[in-house]
Amino acid sequence: MSAPVNTDAMSNPGDRVHAPMPGAEALAEPMRSRWSPSIFDDRHVLGRDELIRILRAGQWSPSSGNLQPWAFVMAERGGPSHVALVEHLSRGNAGWVPRAAVVIITAARVAADPADPDGSRVKAAALSYYDLGQAAAHMTLQARSMGLHAHQFGGFDKDAVARDLGVPEHYRVVSGIAIGRRGTAVEVDDRDREREQRERHRRPLQDFVHGAAWGSPWGEEAR
Amino acid sequence: MSAPVNTDAMSNPGDRVHAPMPGAEALAEPMRSRWSPSIFDDRHVLGRDELIRILRAGQWSPSSGNLQPWAFVMAERGGPSHVALVEHLSRGNAGWVPRAAVVIITAARVAADPADPDGSRVKAAALSYYDLGQAAAHMTLQARSMGLHAHQFGGFDKDAVARDLGVPEHYRVVSGIAIGRRGTAVEVDDRDREREQRERHRRPLQDFVHGAAWGSPWGEEAR
Repeated sequence: MSAPVNTDAMSNPGDRVHAPMPGAEALAEPMRSRWSPSIFDDRHVLGRDELIRILRAGQWSPSSGNLQPWAFVMAERGGPSHVALVEHLSRGNAGWVPRAAVVIITAARVAADPADPDGSRVKAAALSYYDLGQAAAHMTLQARSMGLHAHQFGGFDKDAVARDLGVPEHYRVVSGIAIGRRGTAVEVDDRDREREQRERHRRPLQDFVHGAAWGSPWGEEAR
Repeated sequence: MSAPVNTDAMSNPGDRVHAPMPGAEALAEPMRSRWSPSIFDDRHVLGRDELIRILRAGQWSPSSGNLQPWAFVMAERGGPSHVALVEHLSRGNAGWVPRAAVVIITAARVAADPADPDGSRVKAAALSYYDLGQAAAHMTLQARSMGLHAHQFGGFDKDAVARDLGVPEHYRVVSGIAIGRRGTAVEVDDRDREREQRERHRRPLQDFVHGAAWGSPWGEEAR
């Protein structure tokens, strides 16, 4: 149970082992080998069919009341929406994000469309963000199943991107999902390379798993 | 491309085919065969080791800034937190939810813990709900990989459950994830049986996928 995961079960040329993820060896693929690399191959291009398979994973993710309160802007490297996004990346994301083949910009519906209130209902903004997160997770995992990597990020000027892309008021831009194939470390700067090698940490289960009530431990095994 | 998915790739005794999910045949497992049954085997019990594997999938799901703003209450059938939950289920969920072996009650951290502001930072409530959704998706998919089914639901009195379980102010109860093994339809009422057989529908990709900007189609293939 204590051996770290050091293998990438679904590897591609350019892939390397990731840093240890203690406890993750218990998981099934593609959850087990999912992580967020910061080194993408900037010559790799994703085909339309591959992108559709990734989008279908979002389409079929769980949704409360089947409202599907999500939307995506496909920012393929070099395309108009990609150019608009890259302009507004935070300093920490400006180096690595633009190298990925595509960024899926995600948005949550937080109010009904004034022009189509019945066709775009919202239960609560909280549930829209929650369902958007599920769609992002399913797309991320579908990409991993295809030998790709996805790295989600929130560090960009979302209001500016929403304005430049014409996102309407009843949607909120939430995240970007950079998807591509891993590149080689020699092409990137020291900070991005160092970020790749850091051992990964998570809060222990006992910190966030409760039993009989909040604050009651769920059991001795929950470490 | 048009053949519906009618097979359950990871089936257990008691499992049946699910209704068609057009387009989902393009997906990898466990995303492809994930759906939300409403008929659970009320004699099935989940072992502690299985539950820990499911929780580890949540633990290792993506998280913005690694804040991991989630918490879970393990409501095992018949246990104290399960009894508290069942009391507050909506009428539509009162029939099927209690049959599942366990319900994971999910909560998002929406503010820092006054007693531990540094150890429980929050970037924005929206990102907490988004990350909680990702953790729920990973647990749901891990369960599917283990031959189980998970059905998420929001229909219960969340404020009452939060009060009865002692959930603190800086967390919001968001959903329940019912997990178990499928039961047989003869044990359940007509409405739950009917719900199982309905053909599944999703909005077409062109409804929520944008290209050069919001409202610009991403491509002819995006149907």
